[in-house]
Amino acid sequence: MAELSESAVRLLKGKNLAYLATINDDGSPHVAPTWVDVDPKRGLILINTADGRKKVRNIRRDPRVAISSHDVERPYPPLVVRGTVVDIVTEGALEHIDFLSRKYDDEPWRAVEGQVRLILEIKPDRVRYLDR
Amino acid sequence: MAELSESAVRLLKGKNLAYLATINDDGSPHVAPTWVDVDPKRGLILINTADGRKKVRNIRRDPRVAISSHDVERPYPPLVVRGTVVDIVTEGALEHIDFLSRKYDDEPWRAVEGQVRLILEIKPDRVRYLDR
Repeated sequence: MAELSESAVRLLKGKNLAYLATINDDGSPHVAPTWVDVDPKRGLILINTADGRKKVRNIRRDPRVAISSHDVERPYPPLVVRGTVVDIVTEGALEHIDFLSRKYDDEPWRAVEGQVRLILEIKPDRVRYLDR
Repeated sequence: MAELSESAVRLLKGKNLAYLATINDDGSPHVAPTWVDVDPKRGLILINTADGRKKVRNIRRDPRVAISSHDVERPYPPLVVRGTVVDIVTEGALEHIDFLSRKYDDEPWRAVEGQVRLILEIKPDRVRYLDR
């Protein structure tokens, strides 16, 4: 497991979007932007999504992911992470998306009828971030 | 081949970073931010990179890519593209990276000794962009 530096944690805690890459069933790549969070104590990157989404179907098949982000105020350096989804958690996922909604949109999350929220717990295997 | 809408072309012509996903040799995903350009007449997305880079090695092995971007001024909607690198071009690549350097950094490109620039010509197979 690779460690997230203090500056990488700061980037992920900030109001910065991340891009999550996964593998489609035909082996081709998929990438989409996402809100992102981090659990520094456990050294995990957390992404909240809805069950049934493409990225979730991909991850259930192959848990290997790549994540990249940059500070919205300045593009360099980018953060580039290779990781593995080690758990998919439903408990607390609605509170967590509400937390993210306030972080990114400055407003509470409006729950969608019938939608099941999930937290993807991602263990970083390799981290590249050249910030001091 | 999927068509790039006028608004997708506008996004790609703007000062917006794109994230390019490729496949590593072990089948895991790779993603990194990149400058991006578009050739609307030919319907191609253009990414300029240096020979030997990870993404280039990946693309020579498997030309399938995914690209995502969003307007730097507002995160929604994101652009999500599945595509194929149909050609890797050296001719004009140095002029092209200079054009991109002026677009993103407002300054001319400073050539790096011994570095071979490449233009990745990407044919979009599927485009999702919900902007009007």
